[in-house]
Amino acid sequence: MRILVVNPNTTRSMTATIADAAHRVANPGTEIVAVTSSMGPVSIEGYYDEAFAVPGLLVEIARAEKAGASAAIIACFDDTGLDAARALAHMPVIGICEAALAATSFIAQRFSIVTTMERSRLPLEHLVHRYGMSGRAKVRAADIPVLSLEDPQSNARDRLRNEIAVALREDKAEAIVLGCAGMADLTAELRREFGVPVIDGVAAAVKQAEALVALGLSTAKRGAYASPINKTYTGALEAFAPAAMVRL
Amino acid sequence: MRILVVNPNTTRSMTATIADAAHRVANPGTEIVAVTSSMGPVSIEGYYDEAFAVPGLLVEIARAEKAGASAAIIACFDDTGLDAARALAHMPVIGICEAALAATSFIAQRFSIVTTMERSRLPLEHLVHRYGMSGRAKVRAADIPVLSLEDPQSNARDRLRNEIAVALREDKAEAIVLGCAGMADLTAELRREFGVPVIDGVAAAVKQAEALVALGLSTAKRGAYASPINKTYTGALEAFAPAAMVRL
Amino acid sequence: MRILVVNPNTTRSMTATIADAAHRVANPGTEIVAVTSSMGPVSIEGYYDEAFAVPGLLVEIARAEKAGASAAIIACFDDTGLDAARALAHMPVIGICEAALAATSFIAQRFSIVTTMERSRLPLEHLVHRYGMSGRAKVRAADIPVLSLEDPQSNARDRLRNEIAVALREDKAEAIVLGCAGMADLTAELRREFGVPVIDGVAAAVKQAEALVALGLSTAKRGAYASPINKTYTGALEAFAPAAMVRL
Amino acid sequence: MRILVVNPNTTRSMTATIADAAHRVANPGTEIVAVTSSMGPVSIEGYYDEAFAVPGLLVEIARAEKAGASAAIIACFDDTGLDAARALAHMPVIGICEAALAATSFIAQRFSIVTTMERSRLPLEHLVHRYGMSGRAKVRAADIPVLSLEDPQSNARDRLRNEIAVALREDKAEAIVLGCAGMADLTAELRREFGVPVIDGVAAAVKQAEALVALGLSTAKRGAYASPINKTYTGALEAFAPAAMVRL
Amino acid sequence: MRILVVNPNTTRSMTATIADAAHRVANPGTEIVAVTSSMGPVSIEGYYDEAFAVPGLLVEIARAEKAGASAAIIACFDDTGLDAARALAHMPVIGICEAALAATSFIAQRFSIVTTMERSRLPLEHLVHRYGMSGRAKVRAADIPVLSLEDPQSNARDRLRNEIAVALREDKAEAIVLGCAGMADLTAELRREFGVPVIDGVAAAVKQAEALVALGLSTAKRGAYASPINKTYTGALEAFAPAAMVRL
Amino acid sequence: MRILVVNPNTTRSMTATIADAAHRVANPGTEIVAVTSSMGPVSIEGYYDEAFAVPGLLVEIARAEKAGASAAIIACFDDTGLDAARALAHMPVIGICEAALAATSFIAQRFSIVTTMERSRLPLEHLVHRYGMSGRAKVRAADIPVLSLEDPQSNARDRLRNEIAVALREDKAEAIVLGCAGMADLTAELRREFGVPVIDGVAAAVKQAEALVALGLSTAKRGAYASPINKTYTGALEAFAPAAMVRL
Repeated sequence: MRILVVNPNTTRSMTATIADAAHRVANPGTEIVAVTSSMGPVSIEGYYDEAFAVPGLLVEIARAEKAGASAAIIACFDDTGLDAARALAHMPVIGICEAALAATSFIAQRFSIVTTMERSRLPLEHLVHRYGMSGRAKVRAADIPVLSLEDPQSNARDRLRNEIAVALREDKAEAIVLGCAGMADLTAELRREFGVPVIDGVAAAVKQAEALVALGLSTAKRGAYASPINKTYTGALEAFAPAAMVRL
Repeated sequence: MRILVVNPNTTRSMTATIADAAHRVANPGTEIVAVTSSMGPVSIEGYYDEAFAVPGLLVEIARAEKAGASAAIIACFDDTGLDAARALAHMPVIGICEAALAATSFIAQRFSIVTTMERSRLPLEHLVHRYGMSGRAKVRAADIPVLSLEDPQSNARDRLRNEIAVALREDKAEAIVLGCAGMADLTAELRREFGVPVIDGVAAAVKQAEALVALGLSTAKRGAYASPINKTYTGALEAFAPAAMVRL
Repeated sequence: MRILVVNPNTTRSMTATIADAAHRVANPGTEIVAVTSSMGPVSIEGYYDEAFAVPGLLVEIARAEKAGASAAIIACFDDTGLDAARALAHMPVIGICEAALAATSFIAQRFSIVTTMERSRLPLEHLVHRYGMSGRAKVRAADIPVLSLEDPQSNARDRLRNEIAVALREDKAEAIVLGCAGMADLTAELRREFGVPVIDGVAAAVKQAEALVALGLSTAKRGAYASPINKTYTGALEAFAPAAMVRL
Repeated sequence: MRILVVNPNTTRSMTATIADAAHRVANPGTEIVAVTSSMGPVSIEGYYDEAFAVPGLLVEIARAEKAGASAAIIACFDDTGLDAARALAHMPVIGICEAALAATSFIAQRFSIVTTMERSRLPLEHLVHRYGMSGRAKVRAADIPVLSLEDPQSNARDRLRNEIAVALREDKAEAIVLGCAGMADLTAELRREFGVPVIDGVAAAVKQAEALVALGLSTAKRGAYASPINKTYTGALEAFAPAAMVRL
Repeated sequence: MRILVVNPNTTRSMTATIADAAHRVANPGTEIVAVTSSMGPVSIEGYYDEAFAVPGLLVEIARAEKAGASAAIIACFDDTGLDAARALAHMPVIGICEAALAATSFIAQRFSIVTTMERSRLPLEHLVHRYGMSGRAKVRAADIPVLSLEDPQSNARDRLRNEIAVALREDKAEAIVLGCAGMADLTAELRREFGVPVIDGVAAAVKQAEALVALGLSTAKRGAYASPINKTYTGALEAFAPAAMVRL
Repeated sequence: MRILVVNPNTTRSMTATIADAAHRVANPGTEIVAVTSSMGPVSIEGYYDEAFAVPGLLVEIARAEKAGASAAIIACFDDTGLDAARALAHMPVIGICEAALAATSFIAQRFSIVTTMERSRLPLEHLVHRYGMSGRAKVRAADIPVLSLEDPQSNARDRLRNEIAVALREDKAEAIVLGCAGMADLTAELRREFGVPVIDGVAAAVKQAEALVALGLSTAKRGAYASPINKTYTGALEAFAPAAMVRL
């Protein structure tokens, strides 16, 4: 079983963090292929960056499916491009936000998501609503730029800790979900520190991907995720026409 | 007052239909600038096409804002790229689905949206939910490819009529919303034929854009629509970095 | 195009404030007819006053429609009598709360409404829910009697400012909606002061009315807003029987 | 214990039907005072009639409270004027729709309401939503004018029976709520005929009123139902000013 | 009319408190039969205790129905075993939480429930949601063990008072619901002290039971509450098989 | 890793079906321990049976946790006793309904659950709502007794097929969830026959259990699932007191 883990931003150091988190939980028989998107923003902070992370992400998914991957993971907590990826692929495609929420829903009734920047809070609230967790999950922003998580000099991790403490006290959170792929390496440490379940979406998505593959499930192609109709794509985006992507 | 109307697919004949609908309702003092996206799919049918309609759309919005436009309209009923466009622009940006639903909400309590293909039904149901109309609006697909609306030989218009008749009878719809920009030229005819309000999103969006500009309102830049943070965009998408877009 | 703006309370000075706000944004070709209800409470503060503002309001709407008005606006933020007015009239009828919320929904994801008295807060929460904005808009009361807004000696405007500041800080509001027709003259000043979009319902409703008329839309008469069946009205209310109203 | 039952339309024969239903279930120590509104429409069919049923209704409530009534019932299934009545009175005020839904909720999970005319269906759907029963109760209209229920020559009762049969078959209703005060006399007969619980709102409201009085509960005067602030009411409605109503 | 009131925990002193509350409001013609469950936990604090309170509760309901009871009340604010009891019985079965919420909904728009322990807060939030009061009722825990309410030395009642004060101030509660059967004796005192409606579920359930019986209503047996199908129950639970229960 | 799979009814042949489904998808390193409850109903059909399936279920969970199990699965589609089990255990406890819905949510937007009897439909609708899938999943009953699935002479499987066909046609279901543990052996066959994803909850729960264990997650013990407080349990249920269960 080969699972593609795409970092939809173009920062390789973050892909390394993500790959580590994925390897740590993968089954012995699972091959994790972690790739960095070859085009687009160096970090995804809000709706605009999200839009430009999608093409590179879809290229990686098309390539991996052609090369025989069994499932794909979008390793950005905004679940960037998830619907488009599912329409494109037959293999299961999993967002790390939805995987984290699903895992947490089995072990806690109320929980809080701590993400990076305020501008990402509302998109995550929309995801929480979409995944049916509106009454259960609260979203908090620790006010830290995504790439500062990679910078040992920044106080990003302290701010994250502070926000978790507030979530436990004020939201009466039973568990904490880490709201950015770049926080994946902190999971174990934060569990020890706070003594509550701390959930990282990358790891959760790997296990979910393995599960769906083992269950023999692929994306339903009847309805919302029907395969793209082949048609002309013009101009600078010609190469992304459905037929061209299949040939990748 | 200059209003940009972007057709986010690359089919010029559809832009002409859209431009006509816009001109018909614009105030005397309003200049309508209708443009066809220079890159991406020839029609938008489902999530995959949507993703690739966004870059071209955003380029037109950035250009128009720099050139002094007062507001922008995204003339695809999926409201493709709406959030990214709002983050990018300061001027108001309006989706034709949300404009159509807002207009209809002032004159009817229950209504039906008739769109083209089944694969577009669920994305529209999500929009209906997002715009707070879940209990009020039902979405129906007439099972017609988008571009067949441009083809006088197709039976697309008959299928549309049939589906409207079903909506009136079974949904007890009080009004009908046309769920595709390519249906804009049919509004007057369908009103006469069915004797109920028929709403086209392109026209509705033009009036909404004029209204917001006259009210002196621009997109809120605090929270979800804060301007994109400047950062490096790499590879084939380098030209879309926030700073590069502002220079367009 | 002639638009009726009814102040459903009987305080003429408030009608003047409302008329000013309406004139400021109306198109050159729009005639604004601002009238004060001839019967009922001097201000509308809660459910009881609301009930007695309806008859006078409906009289003005019946008269105006007979005299050729194109649309009507109910200039009280409770959207008093809106459903009854829509059943009575064929022209579009617009509440200033719904117009304000619709306009704001195009430029902000989260916003706060600041109204006058605590007893008006819950009725407005019901409206917010009805208009599908439950997750997006928070209602706050500044604890000021409606008519104190007309009194230069009162501290009503200071209290309003304080509550706006709280809304920006605690609700993370992206925009502010003024929750009383009597605040319409403060819009420009508050925008400058707080640097965020501030929306007044009277102005928003004028533009919405112009839009609906330009779109050729009238109230759907199939379903909830079917015209009143003619029947006997007895006692002191005899004059309000549907047939009598049509003859007004 | 004296309970006012107001028929908010002006048709005395319907008051008689209502009074009978109330007497049949009242406790021995309960005095039922059934009154017909002295002004307004002869039947309430839709939003417009509703608006003009409120003043007469409030007069009766004010009079009865002054004369020592313990509770009041609004005997129209639209729960016409309920919020205004609660703001006015200190005694409990009960709508027959809300009483019927509350009673039914204790004995069934899913049920259907069968009302008179299509134009009343949407207002009842709003009430169902307001009372928190959206997922549980379906509203159906049997397409019968309200006063035809009083007419032995009409086929109103047959149409009602037909619609109940459809509700049992298609909605899988576990119980049936009669959606008009004028159907109260049919309860026993319909129970026998269909073999399922059939609930009449008038009877349900009498028992609910007795219950609230016995529990020593009166309307909360903190928040939404705070007593009307005394103020001038002008013109034809002068007599309805809060202070005047208290003196009734 | 005989009404069974089951205390589903096994603490007799609490049954006495409950019986007192029931007797205080019962009609002269109503016989209250208060029983203590003969098996299970001494108090119900959370999901685990709830599960083991159900068998004893159902035994009492089966016995009472056979002996001619007209209705049954489950006197634990978690409405423990309510659905199973309704499937078993033909007479109405009422939970004290649902009865309290129904009564309060007639006199207040927003209210707060003050319960004992944090671990009971979420189960009550689920009930509030189930009973359609999500937007209206807030649940607070005063952090007091259930049985401490019976202990004159504990500070439980002071903590309860404090939490009520917070609810009035922060939630702007219009009324207070006591969230534990063991608080029933405090109702009158707390009403005097706080000057707002205070609702006890035991008393509310007695009046609701009387009402349903007077209305001639029994549990709908079509759908969710269809009588249990007779079948073998094995092992230690053999005696609870439907047929055995009927023979009790 | 050892995973307990409890069949909460007492029918051993159904445990065998369940065990087979579990073994088919378990990882090589996973030990599946399938047990039949030692007390309670032979099948779970509605709320009453559910209540008596809980004690036996909890005994097996307590025993298995003491013996070193890593996770537990409740193999009845009603997710019988799930909250009580989570309060009791530290290891993750998974219901097969919630596991099936979670898995399906990754591969389809709209789907239908086909269960056995009408009386189980509403409990499943409540679960669908609880798990946040109200808008996405429709529940259908094929009107087949649970144990008839074990009987080769019955037409249960034909009825199931018919209902799946209706779900695909009328609900436009993109995938089918089998709504009873006793259908687990039909999964592969139905996938081939209908050509859409068919999801069995037993298999889904096994993979979910493995995932949670691999992620190092256990049930949150802060809030709703705090461990039961030790206390006396009396009468026939003495042996189920928290302390006694821990000693099992």
